[in-house]
Amino acid sequence: MKNIAILGSTGSIGTSTLDICERYPERYRVVSLAAGTNLDLAYQQAARWRPQVMSVATEELATQLTQKLKAAGITGTEVVYGTAGTVRVATLPEVSFVVSAIVGVAGLEATYAAVNAGKTIGLANKEAMVAAGELIIAAAKKNNVTILPIDSEHNAIHQAMRAGTTNEVKQIWLTASGGPFRNTPLKDFENITPAQALKHPTWVMGQRITIDSATMLNKGLEIIEACRLFDLPANKVKVTIHPQSTIHSLVEYVDGSILAQLSVTDMRLPILYAMAYPERVPSELTFDMAALAQLDFQQPDFERFPCLRLAYEAAEAGPSHCIALNAADEIAVAAFLNGDLPFLGIPRTIERVLERTPAANPATIAEVLQADAAARENARLVASEMLSRA
Amino acid sequence: MKNIAILGSTGSIGTSTLDICERYPERYRVVSLAAGTNLDLAYQQAARWRPQVMSVATEELATQLTQKLKAAGITGTEVVYGTAGTVRVATLPEVSFVVSAIVGVAGLEATYAAVNAGKTIGLANKEAMVAAGELIIAAAKKNNVTILPIDSEHNAIHQAMRAGTTNEVKQIWLTASGGPFRNTPLKDFENITPAQALKHPTWVMGQRITIDSATMLNKGLEIIEACRLFDLPANKVKVTIHPQSTIHSLVEYVDGSILAQLSVTDMRLPILYAMAYPERVPSELTFDMAALAQLDFQQPDFERFPCLRLAYEAAEAGPSHCIALNAADEIAVAAFLNGDLPFLGIPRTIERVLERTPAANPATIAEVLQADAAARENARLVASEMLSRA
Repeated sequence: MKNIAILGSTGSIGTSTLDICERYPERYRVVSLAAGTNLDLAYQQAARWRPQVMSVATEELATQLTQKLKAAGITGTEVVYGTAGTVRVATLPEVSFVVSAIVGVAGLEATYAAVNAGKTIGLANKEAMVAAGELIIAAAKKNNVTILPIDSEHNAIHQAMRAGTTNEVKQIWLTASGGPFRNTPLKDFENITPAQALKHPTWVMGQRITIDSATMLNKGLEIIEACRLFDLPANKVKVTIHPQSTIHSLVEYVDGSILAQLSVTDMRLPILYAMAYPERVPSELTFDMAALAQLDFQQPDFERFPCLRLAYEAAEAGPSHCIALNAADEIAVAAFLNGDLPFLGIPRTIERVLERTPAANPATIAEVLQADAAARENARLVASEMLSRA
Repeated sequence: MKNIAILGSTGSIGTSTLDICERYPERYRVVSLAAGTNLDLAYQQAARWRPQVMSVATEELATQLTQKLKAAGITGTEVVYGTAGTVRVATLPEVSFVVSAIVGVAGLEATYAAVNAGKTIGLANKEAMVAAGELIIAAAKKNNVTILPIDSEHNAIHQAMRAGTTNEVKQIWLTASGGPFRNTPLKDFENITPAQALKHPTWVMGQRITIDSATMLNKGLEIIEACRLFDLPANKVKVTIHPQSTIHSLVEYVDGSILAQLSVTDMRLPILYAMAYPERVPSELTFDMAALAQLDFQQPDFERFPCLRLAYEAAEAGPSHCIALNAADEIAVAAFLNGDLPFLGIPRTIERVLERTPAANPATIAEVLQADAAARENARLVASEMLSRA
């Protein structure tokens, strides 16, 4: 029996994790949950799972949740809130496995705390690795903690890496759907609308990640994440466009063998893999090999996807540039969705922010958050400069 | 440094193995070689590699080789011959790794002797596993011997199996090129000529294996080999047609993950993998992922490829039927190449031989060879009955 904490229980990864807990009650017990602002779902989860501790975003929400639980006669769940609450959820002594699925840098402190508390981590929060990867990996090594990636690409790499050692890896290949614009004429890029960019061909995801998929900045963040998770330099992390998203990524070994992982496009599979590791448990998430007909691949080009180039540059430049890449993108995407920036304003904003970012190596999570805030401020300035010039 | 013996040194796998020994002199030392009847090449190999022991097919060839070596002033190689000679090559105390690459049941005794002598085996001889798999696997378990498959499909499975345990395997998928007739109209099958059947789309191989690839009997033998090597029932060994032969095979795990191995189609890669295992060593056998465009798959059907159905039936029926499948095919293919049987006479011959084969479980290599000889005799009878009726 593994005792599970979920950071981000009301999000897509969180509810998928609870779905797995529902299907494997003999294997997984929900001990603590960190929700955000979705009080109704937080209440339902508390009522269903009776966690020891449940965290919500604010003190006010915590008071409301406490009252709802009391009114329903549900006892035994301690309600906490804010960053301290999330950290509490992540570090409870009973917890052995923490699913880190709070989007953005918000989940950073709790994830770092969980690593330092010796919990096994199922990591769905790629910003954590991008913004604070070196700190988290160092803490994981010190505490002998296993970090199991939950996003499908890194999960695939983790699986394919079992066929050899890190020293035997020549390079890895992250597959990318290529988003909706992989074949759009370059001249049309300037006029891409938010509605066009929000149509993703394979995965249904949140808004920012869908735009990041269209710019391939998402793949850029994954390149940085892969460098940190698998201890590889950026020039050993390649990208290939694979529109069907059937092969989730590949590891190329020095002898010439390439190991690939294929599966259905269902996030429950990498979550289950991480939760069950080092075992594999039977699931109904079956890929129908007998129906497989064709897999296509094409090469990404940096002219079409400048965000990919910027990600490699940030990875080479170091931690503060990786923080800036992620922060600037979040601001630029919000501005694009708000109609304040054109589609190509996203890479332009990121590029200018990167140029203004000093090289630095944050030594604490607080310094990471400072660098993140500075990059956001920078990105807002750059975006408003662009807007005023437009 | 690994000390290598090669059974079948003048064949395609043998010369590829020596090519690897040439490239990695710091890793592999050639200690003993078993050639067949190609005296010129046997001499060249003896002169180049100065093995402690070299075996050839017959006493007469051994005398000639001894004289040639003496005339050239080459000393230090003991020349032996026949089955006893091959066994000597395979069991020399200095040898740690034996490449078993003699085609057909001829290499059986030496391979079995090598396993019983505790050598690690690189197995390219699939007939050994088909005809005597249970004996060899039992001996390998008893002697704690590792058998590393060298044919590309089973080598791929071996690699992909490292991402889990045997108990976690749901089923495996052997890829097949489908041969030259995967899209030929069924009505044209009766008139397929040897020249048509000898044109293989991807691999350049010997005559029998090329015909076996056209009938997919080759894949049938690989199904049986996979059952033995990976301890799987036949219903867990599937086949998918993949004309590019880029993915060499796949392992489907119970959780829904599928691990695949891709590489160039060069036999040196699986040989090198087996020789280097559990390490991987750098090679120039690079697959160009950046040039990958499309991978196709289709399902084999038993009407088009009755040999595939017969192989599953033989695998279910047991060891004597597997022996008969292989032996009958070898006779039928020879008759087809000789113009004595039509293309569809191959599966018809095998089917009748299987019907006449009593269920039995040979307990010794001698019993295997007896069953093999009986099946061949049976196949000759069946083929000549067909010929006389034609």
